[in-house]
Amino acid sequence: MENKIKLKKDERIDDLEFKNLKIIQNNNGFCFGIDSILLSDFAKNLKKNANVLDLGTGTGIIATLLCGKTNLKKVIGVEVQEEVYDMAKRSIILNNLENKFEIINENIKNIENILPKNTFDVVVSNPPYKKANTGIYNEDKRKLISRHEIEASLEDFIYVAKNMLKSQGELYLVHRPERLVDILYIMRKYKIEPKILRFVFSTPKDLPKLVLIKGVKNANPFLKIEKNLYIYDENKEYTDEIKKIYNKGGND
Amino acid sequence: MENKIKLKKDERIDDLEFKNLKIIQNNNGFCFGIDSILLSDFAKNLKKNANVLDLGTGTGIIATLLCGKTNLKKVIGVEVQEEVYDMAKRSIILNNLENKFEIINENIKNIENILPKNTFDVVVSNPPYKKANTGIYNEDKRKLISRHEIEASLEDFIYVAKNMLKSQGELYLVHRPERLVDILYIMRKYKIEPKILRFVFSTPKDLPKLVLIKGVKNANPFLKIEKNLYIYDENKEYTDEIKKIYNKGGND
Repeated sequence: MENKIKLKKDERIDDLEFKNLKIIQNNNGFCFGIDSILLSDFAKNLKKNANVLDLGTGTGIIATLLCGKTNLKKVIGVEVQEEVYDMAKRSIILNNLENKFEIINENIKNIENILPKNTFDVVVSNPPYKKANTGIYNEDKRKLISRHEIEASLEDFIYVAKNMLKSQGELYLVHRPERLVDILYIMRKYKIEPKILRFVFSTPKDLPKLVLIKGVKNANPFLKIEKNLYIYDENKEYTDEIKKIYNKGGND
Repeated sequence: MENKIKLKKDERIDDLEFKNLKIIQNNNGFCFGIDSILLSDFAKNLKKNANVLDLGTGTGIIATLLCGKTNLKKVIGVEVQEEVYDMAKRSIILNNLENKFEIINENIKNIENILPKNTFDVVVSNPPYKKANTGIYNEDKRKLISRHEIEASLEDFIYVAKNMLKSQGELYLVHRPERLVDILYIMRKYKIEPKILRFVFSTPKDLPKLVLIKGVKNANPFLKIEKNLYIYDENKEYTDEIKKIYNKGGND
């Protein structure tokens, strides 16, 4: 299988230990974290035959997992960085997902000129967490673009999601809690009403480190905050829920 | 002491078990809950000699506790219901707080015509939680106005807070989690940036039942989510934090 693709310098293949899916990553670039795993789990109840758009798809981790976890019809990933796009393209071939997962090398801000608007059932995104010009810039440009709002801002991501979603279509995001006001404000501004929040904690003693958000285009206001998601228990072991998220493939 | 005031029909005096403070309540009206106790604790680090405004003061529970817990200069309560205003006025006398706690019988929407704008250091409010025309209306009109946005909406409360606060003045609110998007959206709309959120749970196994919010007028965006506040532990006993909030007076 892996003969089909060639690895470039500093690249490796990571086994997702789920339905034999794999992801090519670059040792010096931005590698996916638990954020993407949790987001794909949070979004996994999307309806059958859904058309899905993954904004800022990176190595393709979320779209790949959604192909394994759901009965989606098609997922289109949009990735601005050519080198990262190229890795994701080879991961698609490696996983035999050519009929389900397509990837476009483009800035998300231009996607409404390429794909038909108001046609997607679901948009997923793990956008850059930090504003441009904040914090210490990482030296590697690939990590910089993945982590900071250089190529597109949070508002761009949500505005594009609004334009691409059908009415009642669903947006699933993962982000940092300190940006929660930005996220909720901008979502409502663009008529994607936040419906579900879930906070993610390292352990029950910590402050939340991530937040998962589901919004629905043109929905009525009423927010549900789901029970907290803890990664580790008091003994620093994975919680049962996290074990289930990581090992689910074994029982499928 | 209690000879100074007269109780009317169906009224009682509740001892706050804190610095000998008491509150008159009506058995058939809206009685204060843990929300107000938690909000006054959440707001207790306000600066010395602060001028405080309590919007929708009700029986005066929050303003009364703030008089006991802080070194505020003066707190002005605004209460639209004459009967409730009259109870609060007698509680002020009962507590000898005439020099610190003043109450005005007025709709909060008119207060900017009565008090000077942009002059308050702190606004506190436990506003009605439910939108007008939602849910089953309680038959008692006093409870109705305390619980539903009949006389003033959430947007009115935040808009008035914005007009009355100094720049960098602080707004402290308690509300229901399902209204979180409304709250954060409206606060940012009126330039009261949400800076701290704290979710309150009955027990660690429950969903959050309340949220405490601190916003600062004209502040920069950056939200901190504080550690969860649990009322009961797994054995249905008050947690240490709640015991401390309720019993603190004993050690002062």
